[in-house]
Amino acid sequence: MTAPMEITASSNKRIKHLMALIQKRKARQEEGCFVAEGEHLFAEVPDRLLREIYVARSFYQSSREAVDGKDKPVYVLEDRLFDKVSDTKSPQGILCVAAVPQWDADQLISLDAPLFLLLDEIRDPGNLGTMIRTGEAAGIDGIWLLPGCADPYQPKVVRSAMGALYRVPVLEEKPDELLRRWKDKGIRLYGSSLDASLSYDAPDYRHPTAFVIGNESRGISDEMLSQCDERIIIPMKGQVESLNAAIAASLMMFEAARQRRM
Amino acid sequence: MTAPMEITASSNKRIKHLMALIQKRKARQEEGCFVAEGEHLFAEVPDRLLREIYVARSFYQSSREAVDGKDKPVYVLEDRLFDKVSDTKSPQGILCVAAVPQWDADQLISLDAPLFLLLDEIRDPGNLGTMIRTGEAAGIDGIWLLPGCADPYQPKVVRSAMGALYRVPVLEEKPDELLRRWKDKGIRLYGSSLDASLSYDAPDYRHPTAFVIGNESRGISDEMLSQCDERIIIPMKGQVESLNAAIAASLMMFEAARQRRM
Repeated sequence: MTAPMEITASSNKRIKHLMALIQKRKARQEEGCFVAEGEHLFAEVPDRLLREIYVARSFYQSSREAVDGKDKPVYVLEDRLFDKVSDTKSPQGILCVAAVPQWDADQLISLDAPLFLLLDEIRDPGNLGTMIRTGEAAGIDGIWLLPGCADPYQPKVVRSAMGALYRVPVLEEKPDELLRRWKDKGIRLYGSSLDASLSYDAPDYRHPTAFVIGNESRGISDEMLSQCDERIIIPMKGQVESLNAAIAASLMMFEAARQRRM
Repeated sequence: MTAPMEITASSNKRIKHLMALIQKRKARQEEGCFVAEGEHLFAEVPDRLLREIYVARSFYQSSREAVDGKDKPVYVLEDRLFDKVSDTKSPQGILCVAAVPQWDADQLISLDAPLFLLLDEIRDPGNLGTMIRTGEAAGIDGIWLLPGCADPYQPKVVRSAMGALYRVPVLEEKPDELLRRWKDKGIRLYGSSLDASLSYDAPDYRHPTAFVIGNESRGISDEMLSQCDERIIIPMKGQVESLNAAIAASLMMFEAARQRRM
């Protein structure tokens, strides 16, 4: 175990490094790391991903046993400095730097009857995080992000995903090559469209299945829709024009989960 | 049609009145009115609920036809004043004061096979608004709020509900009397609990049905659970501890909708 290091100045290079990881996608991509803040996200981080631990002095004084057993560098920050670095309204006094999990796309695609989400320009971090969290609960095998989605490792997504980001394979890929490989493996692509007539609970999702979820305002692009094997619709009453993207994704994933339980 | 009135000073009593309606639950309750902001929410407001219209000068100059036909008082605000009053990050230059819709509880309870939501201490405005929006799409007959829920007429709920608040009956009531009346009418109460063994897709929701949704962190209180006819669970894989309250509500409502379509 290394002794904790004290940091008192915001000009410290560790603090600058940490702020860059919190604020900049480019910094996260270059280092292959992201920041997970709060007791819950720290408690759930797998040892293989944990890199560094940052705590507020008052947290360290009251709860040092939470971090001392980890055999990873611990940095103790003045409370005011910790609050400044924190991305949350009510900082809990602990955050960590974790490695971006690496997943084997070929292995996932080769699963017997995988259940995937394919996200096309999902921009809202809260939606993206909720889909990852709900996806884990529904038993999704992987979530694939096409270019134009929010960064899954930005703080708000990490928070909304509530630990699921450590465990659900999230992969970023370009569409052409990915869709070709999926088709080769017989993975059927379902896209929801307000023009569709096939209800989302009609197809048999016990086969290899991927649901496409489109942009929050515009839905799935025509180009992507033309790639789908089936267009489906979630029947809606009243005058609602559309469902929230995370709600729609949840309904589809849990319909697949329901069929797969039977 | 009354001529539009110009307002240039934030000290104007109309502006103070408007700010109170935006910021204070008490003001909304005393007047039985709330504020709906943005072009979409203005376009959807039913005439019977519309009371007053406030527009930014630049909006009025470019789009006066949107408001002139309404036969309701129109107030034109200096753009800077409108932006100050607005509750949104990117003001669209139009908002209105609408009457809180009144609903007949007895009539709703007497429906043949009603489908209700009962919300117990739902605190997050975004969750509440999303449940109202999704509830309309699922064909819910009414959403009942017990004491301790967020105010359904605060701006963030109004925004998230995206117009559904004009159309879905939302009622605030105390539990004892309400639950007695529901039981008299044979409305079955379903509460989700992590200890339950009955899957949420097993009961027959074509009968009179109400789903209880509990607080975002604590779930349904023991007292309320003891009032439920059945405890149900949404089967979850992975290590997710719980679903977001709006997601859980959506899955239950759309399961009922699915059964009722068959």
